Amino acid sequence: MISKRREFIKTTSLAGLMTISLPKIVNAAIPSSPAVKLTDGNVILFQGDSITDAGRKKDDNNFNNPTSLGSGYVVQAAGDLLLAFADKGLKIYNKGISGNKVYQLEERWDADCLQIKPDVLSILIGVNDYWHKHNGNYNGTVEIYQKDLRALLDRTKAALPNVKLIIMEPYALKGLKAVDDTWYPEFDAYRLAAKQIANDYHAHFIPLQAVFNEALKVAPKEYWSADGVHPTLAGAKLIAHAWTKVVKG
Amino acid sequence: MISKRREFIKTTSLAGLMTISLPKIVNAAIPSSPAVKLTDGNVILFQGDSITDAGRKKDDNNFNNPTSLGSGYVVQAAGDLLLAFADKGLKIYNKGISGNKVYQLEERWDADCLQIKPDVLSILIGVNDYWHKHNGNYNGTVEIYQKDLRALLDRTKAALPNVKLIIMEPYALKGLKAVDDTWYPEFDAYRLAAKQIANDYHAHFIPLQAVFNEALKVAPKEYWSADGVHPTLAGAKLIAHAWTKVVKG
Repeated sequence: MISKRREFIKTTSLAGLMTISLPKIVNAAIPSSPAVKLTDGNVILFQGDSITDAGRKKDDNNFNNPTSLGSGYVVQAAGDLLLAFADKGLKIYNKGISGNKVYQLEERWDADCLQIKPDVLSILIGVNDYWHKHNGNYNGTVEIYQKDLRALLDRTKAALPNVKLIIMEPYALKGLKAVDDTWYPEFDAYRLAAKQIANDYHAHFIPLQAVFNEALKVAPKEYWSADGVHPTLAGAKLIAHAWTKVVKG
Repeated sequence: MISKRREFIKTTSLAGLMTISLPKIVNAAIPSSPAVKLTDGNVILFQGDSITDAGRKKDDNNFNNPTSLGSGYVVQAAGDLLLAFADKGLKIYNKGISGNKVYQLEERWDADCLQIKPDVLSILIGVNDYWHKHNGNYNGTVEIYQKDLRALLDRTKAALPNVKLIIMEPYALKGLKAVDDTWYPEFDAYRLAAKQIANDYHAHFIPLQAVFNEALKVAPKEYWSADGVHPTLAGAKLIAHAWTKVVKG
């Protein structure tokens, strides 16, 4: 049993898996080697808005449970992680909530992040900070987005000094229902802000816009997203795939 | 665009991906090379019982839609397929229904299989044919299981002579809630029947019992299944992973 486990660990590599499967999409966008090491019993928390939420069941605090993880990129990434690192006893949570902007993560951060004590915290937030402003339903600016996100990360690092941070880039696919030319260049500032903050906080940054831009060379935009914001199943798996590339066992 | 697509196609290989990721679990059980070739616009249909159903939304006829695909192995396999073969425009359906035995597939086969005209048809059926008998709720025998499944496949091949068949082995994990020693050796006859029928009908057989037996060397049974019949998310991804090993682009 022990030697079997060792063999399994030695030959299991999500990075290797990812390199072979989709080099033209994801490697073009993410050339680096995996950087986040997962260890026994690690708690992984996914946070964000509707892209993360993806219709998850919210009346429980379950981990590794498919309905609690939603039907989006989190359950796709979780499936890969739980299989590839089956020996590690990972606990994977999804606490994304549809419609959220950064300040709304802040309001529920104690219960939905700090009390969960993640070892790895992944955040995908920002499209609503822009979109809701664009629609006239929110007064925020990119400066507020930055200030709020920095404050959230300061608070997180104070409570969880050893947490490994993964920040995913807000992205949009122009020319689908919700996203037209009027989004640009203003929306790009949110993408750049997320990247700058990831850098400043030593977080691992996942450049989802570049990942989707590469994917558009293989299949049309409708294949990856219905409305330009929310991914299809193919788009969700694409996000999951990019995410799993940054972790290793 | 064209050359990018060619590069993508050339370098995309689910088989390669699978070989690297989990050799100790799945390769031990499935040493063969991928045999089912997927081509442009292929329709893939997953059929079966609750393991396939996995809480899917049933009031639509959607393909590639995560909630219509359920929260089990089908949505995990579909995510992998839609990403790895993004250039092929695959259409993936799940028509599994919880509790089904073979004769119940037969009753809904026109609407839930033949009218969908799958190019690839995957069937996982049999655990209820035994389990419901064991519980005293069904009079079937393994002979009836075989007879019903052969009749279903005869009917399928008559209507869809070019369909590529994938038959998954019914499996059980002994020592969990629903499965105890009283299942054996009777249940094994259902597994063997599925294998024999796969062979007789030139279907690709996926030996899920062997796959789970290998997985048990890496993590305890509770990690892969809650009750011995229904997989956890890790177990669902394990099934998906074994399934995707038999297809190629």
